[in-house]
Amino acid sequence: MSEPRERLYLDDLRVGQRFTSATHAVTVEQIVASAAEFDPQPFHMDPEAAKDGFFGELVASGWHTAAITMRLQVESGLPIAGGIVGAGGELSWPAPTRPGDVLHVESEVIEIKPSRSRPERGMITVRSETRNQRGDVVQKLMVKLVVPRRAR
Amino acid sequence: MSEPRERLYLDDLRVGQRFTSATHAVTVEQIVASAAEFDPQPFHMDPEAAKDGFFGELVASGWHTAAITMRLQVESGLPIAGGIVGAGGELSWPAPTRPGDVLHVESEVIEIKPSRSRPERGMITVRSETRNQRGDVVQKLMVKLVVPRRAR
Repeated sequence: MSEPRERLYLDDLRVGQRFTSATHAVTVEQIVASAAEFDPQPFHMDPEAAKDGFFGELVASGWHTAAITMRLQVESGLPIAGGIVGAGGELSWPAPTRPGDVLHVESEVIEIKPSRSRPERGMITVRSETRNQRGDVVQKLMVKLVVPRRAR
Repeated sequence: MSEPRERLYLDDLRVGQRFTSATHAVTVEQIVASAAEFDPQPFHMDPEAAKDGFFGELVASGWHTAAITMRLQVESGLPIAGGIVGAGGELSWPAPTRPGDVLHVESEVIEIKPSRSRPERGMITVRSETRNQRGDVVQKLMVKLVVPRRAR
């Protein structure tokens, strides 16, 4: 965990605002443990069997990459007041996460929309890229988040 | 794990084909453990603190719902030859997953596209809905999957 940061309300955000998270080092043990629980396929669990699989080597489940991204966003990425509450979005994995990768997340606020019906909140759209130590993008996410407004 | 099922190649699939997974019962312990690792926010980890949070009660992280969905798809949902290899898609969480929910996944093949450049494979688009025991949709996913063709 990093030091406490100021938490931002809808009123504090602006389009184009950028955030960069801390890093997370991915190990083969993390990849296999996550896959055993949530994506038990040979190319995520068994280095030998993975050689014959789609990727030709052991790689992380895309959902593991998504989960690591979320942890980085919560702890050091997006300092949103009220927490990070996502309604959904578009997700892609242009390249796999591999053992030894060191990931971080770069985010940009794309849109800010106060709610018409709920004056105490609004929605923002955030585009994030999760990158490895070589700069390769392992996940792109365009997500809509619910953000509270400052109390008047 | 269910009994072994026939694995389907691109050539075996047709638009409109449907699949229904087995069920998974979600416990408060699972929700808190998943959140502690990947989405450490009070409304996913602490039933008391969650009363003051966005949802007014403890709910699962959307990424936990996604991970449960993936496990159901791998073990009993989509019997794709070569495994379930996703390139990305659109995701939304219309309602939260709560402790005690029993989830299953309903899927439908929406599109089938043989690859022009790679004759040994193609892409399919699958729309899935993850539903709880009341039929509420807790996740919608429209995902593109890489699927091998039968060897000639």
